[in-house]
Amino acid sequence: MTRKAAIVGGGVIGGGWAARFLLSGWDVAIFDPDPEAPRKIGEVLANARAALPALADVPMPAEGRLTFSKTIQDAVEGADYIQESVSERLELKHKVYAQIQAHAPTTLLGSSTSGFKPSELQIKATNPATIFVAHPFNPVYLLPLAEVVPSQKNDPDHIENAKEILREIGMYPLHVRKEIDAHIADRFLEAVWREALWLVKDGVATTEEIDEAIRMGFGLRWGQMGLFETYRVAGGEAGMKHFMAQFGPCLTWPWTKLMDVPEFTDELVDLIAGQSDAQSGHHSIRELERIRDQNLIGFLRVLKDTNWGAGKVLLDHDERRRTLASAPTPDTAAPLVLAHMQVLPGWIDYNGHMTESRYLHASTETCDAFLRFIGAGLEYVKAGHSYYTAESHIMHAGEAKLGDKLTGSVQVLGSDEKRLHLFIRIERDGALVASIEQMLLHVDMAAGRACPVKPEVLERLTPITAAHSALARPDTAGRFVGQRKS
Amino acid sequence: MTRKAAIVGGGVIGGGWAARFLLSGWDVAIFDPDPEAPRKIGEVLANARAALPALADVPMPAEGRLTFSKTIQDAVEGADYIQESVSERLELKHKVYAQIQAHAPTTLLGSSTSGFKPSELQIKATNPATIFVAHPFNPVYLLPLAEVVPSQKNDPDHIENAKEILREIGMYPLHVRKEIDAHIADRFLEAVWREALWLVKDGVATTEEIDEAIRMGFGLRWGQMGLFETYRVAGGEAGMKHFMAQFGPCLTWPWTKLMDVPEFTDELVDLIAGQSDAQSGHHSIRELERIRDQNLIGFLRVLKDTNWGAGKVLLDHDERRRTLASAPTPDTAAPLVLAHMQVLPGWIDYNGHMTESRYLHASTETCDAFLRFIGAGLEYVKAGHSYYTAESHIMHAGEAKLGDKLTGSVQVLGSDEKRLHLFIRIERDGALVASIEQMLLHVDMAAGRACPVKPEVLERLTPITAAHSALARPDTAGRFVGQRKS
Repeated sequence: MTRKAAIVGGGVIGGGWAARFLLSGWDVAIFDPDPEAPRKIGEVLANARAALPALADVPMPAEGRLTFSKTIQDAVEGADYIQESVSERLELKHKVYAQIQAHAPTTLLGSSTSGFKPSELQIKATNPATIFVAHPFNPVYLLPLAEVVPSQKNDPDHIENAKEILREIGMYPLHVRKEIDAHIADRFLEAVWREALWLVKDGVATTEEIDEAIRMGFGLRWGQMGLFETYRVAGGEAGMKHFMAQFGPCLTWPWTKLMDVPEFTDELVDLIAGQSDAQSGHHSIRELERIRDQNLIGFLRVLKDTNWGAGKVLLDHDERRRTLASAPTPDTAAPLVLAHMQVLPGWIDYNGHMTESRYLHASTETCDAFLRFIGAGLEYVKAGHSYYTAESHIMHAGEAKLGDKLTGSVQVLGSDEKRLHLFIRIERDGALVASIEQMLLHVDMAAGRACPVKPEVLERLTPITAAHSALARPDTAGRFVGQRKS
Repeated sequence: MTRKAAIVGGGVIGGGWAARFLLSGWDVAIFDPDPEAPRKIGEVLANARAALPALADVPMPAEGRLTFSKTIQDAVEGADYIQESVSERLELKHKVYAQIQAHAPTTLLGSSTSGFKPSELQIKATNPATIFVAHPFNPVYLLPLAEVVPSQKNDPDHIENAKEILREIGMYPLHVRKEIDAHIADRFLEAVWREALWLVKDGVATTEEIDEAIRMGFGLRWGQMGLFETYRVAGGEAGMKHFMAQFGPCLTWPWTKLMDVPEFTDELVDLIAGQSDAQSGHHSIRELERIRDQNLIGFLRVLKDTNWGAGKVLLDHDERRRTLASAPTPDTAAPLVLAHMQVLPGWIDYNGHMTESRYLHASTETCDAFLRFIGAGLEYVKAGHSYYTAESHIMHAGEAKLGDKLTGSVQVLGSDEKRLHLFIRIERDGALVASIEQMLLHVDMAAGRACPVKPEVLERLTPITAAHSALARPDTAGRFVGQRKS
């Protein structure tokens, strides 16, 4: 049954939560008295729809239903999870929780607060046990981190349920074991923010120079290893102790202005806002969002390739979805539809459409799914055998564009103990975009030569080949490059 | 003429500098009294050789010659640039500078110091005017940032020359206009480091939890936008002032422990070293270096695709090298060798060799180079015309492995006003790895249909087609998939 998430407070953060739940197949009810909320949420949702599916390698679930509720009661009634993202004012949060818990006293209630401790949020609550911190990071629909902070009043089982829901929508719940103002990440952001304000105020660096000092150097490091693992590597063979022996004493050097807080004057605000305009003003906020999301998608896909950090979260999430989907066995009397893909930003070439090597990439994804289907997947490869492509012929029948959803299907043209002759169709909405005819050879990988396929694979392959022999042979099968159309 | 860089101090940082200069075609002389220096430098250099070329899309220059000098005099004599990376002790640096300037008093002398100001480095120097800070970030061979900090004693022309040399070896010189302890980036690192030590000491978070809080969230943001641009986007349409109005007051909240410095006891060192072992101890330092480099290469290539931040530095560097190389016009009476590539980590599939779609990718790179060669490059596409591939046939003749250097050549099998029939060979050390036969159609992109090519392109294409008609036709041209070898 479709579950329901209630989003109370619909700004950029609330919108990001709404997008994650909707795109994960949950129904979402939003409460926000701001008449602009539907427009703002719509913009976040448009960004998320263009971005989040680009991280998945298994089909996304059907999107849930979005409603805007007129009252908190409407939003939270029947909800399986509630996320609060109102302004950072404690008395406002307390008031909102009283209204929520009047109608949904036992429902999990996560707060997006970046500063308050859960024990502060729970003060005066009808049911403090269900209120906890679930602090996300902008853009919420792309960054996996959610700091989950309970207090001693929370039931540990509730918190585990909440973490499971967060994993289900693709997040990485970081369980913060001791409550503390601003949790973990924002303490670092605050430290850097103070220091940055000093540097600008003292005329040491502009906002642009500070941003370059970050993104040309340690920022790149921190997207894939954090502070300690980076330093562990820097310490080299001598290890972490050696690193600390070198850098520990620096703590007492007069390096930073951290002992002091800059005065937050109008002049300082104007100075920073002016420098920021000079640095980034030639891009609109919408443009910057698109650039940021495209870069983040790229980084996250790199990490997915290396199964590292946030990329491991994505792979685990795919695996969870793959298992849940439990795809029905396809009908082997027709071409087998085995792959579902979406055209990603990196697949586009200078002509503005999908670059030709990505058609072969889509074909490979389809072929790999077929090999898994006949029992010649990764485990089979690990045991020393695989199918290698000997030759391919690609016919282009249309242009795929950014965001297009493509399917890949396999028709077996022939097979024997060593050879596998496939015809793969890449389609969009049932219309052919490209076809790929391939001859694969079964190989002994260590010996580097063709050899007969294992009987258990042949047993699965042969009936499909037999069933497909009844299908019409594709017009372009057996075609050579430049052949006149008959 | 090959230029010479002298590297004084050969640890991880000195080794990174040496690698950048060598791989950029400079000769490098290293002075380091440590008998282990050649081994240590060798390890850094091996990492760099596996990593830095993966960022380039133009051929790398021939590597320079590496020598280990027995004296500072030998290292610095005849050098065009000197980089000092000895330990962070001011009296040691002064002693080293005196020895350097006894033999090379007018040569540019950059220091890798992370803490000292240039005016401190220049004290008592024979020639303070050539001594400045050039502070890099580990791994030096991949991260582009070098903070360049002069004092008032430096000649501005010298500093501009130094920045030009840094750009030549692929770095991004960030000119720090006001000297200050620890320059810019390390002030932030220090602020975060202090806060992190408090969190571990107080038992709020382990080193692993802190690293996750960074790399699952804001670390990903900072690799592509820095602090201020990220917050500008977060502020949304209301802009930077709105963002600051929201977050400014937090400065006086009791959020951080920054007002105090943790005591650096043995217990704290043991606690952190122990947690770091639990977090990362299952990987050796060498493994972590490889993982880090692979992730960084991936991030940097993503940014290169979007022409953003550090990726723009890489593109500009390619462009500089492409112009400098001023490739000789290839002999049009033979297949045209037009592309030089290296097999990157992301090109490898589960079989451990180059994935099939990357052969077509290599072919596309070659074909694009040919289109530029006949005057149908990006400018031509911008004006509304392009060649689209109609069909392709790929024959695999070998396996390419990680790091293999590949060349792509084009033989024109035929052409007319609308059609272009190419045979592309992908070779390694002169041996065929794959061949790709393609039929391309010249199209009017707006109309979406074939049309005659512009006369100026035809004028360049036709003589090549004529010259190539004298070449032997490849055996596999005109082959269909599964055809028996004749």
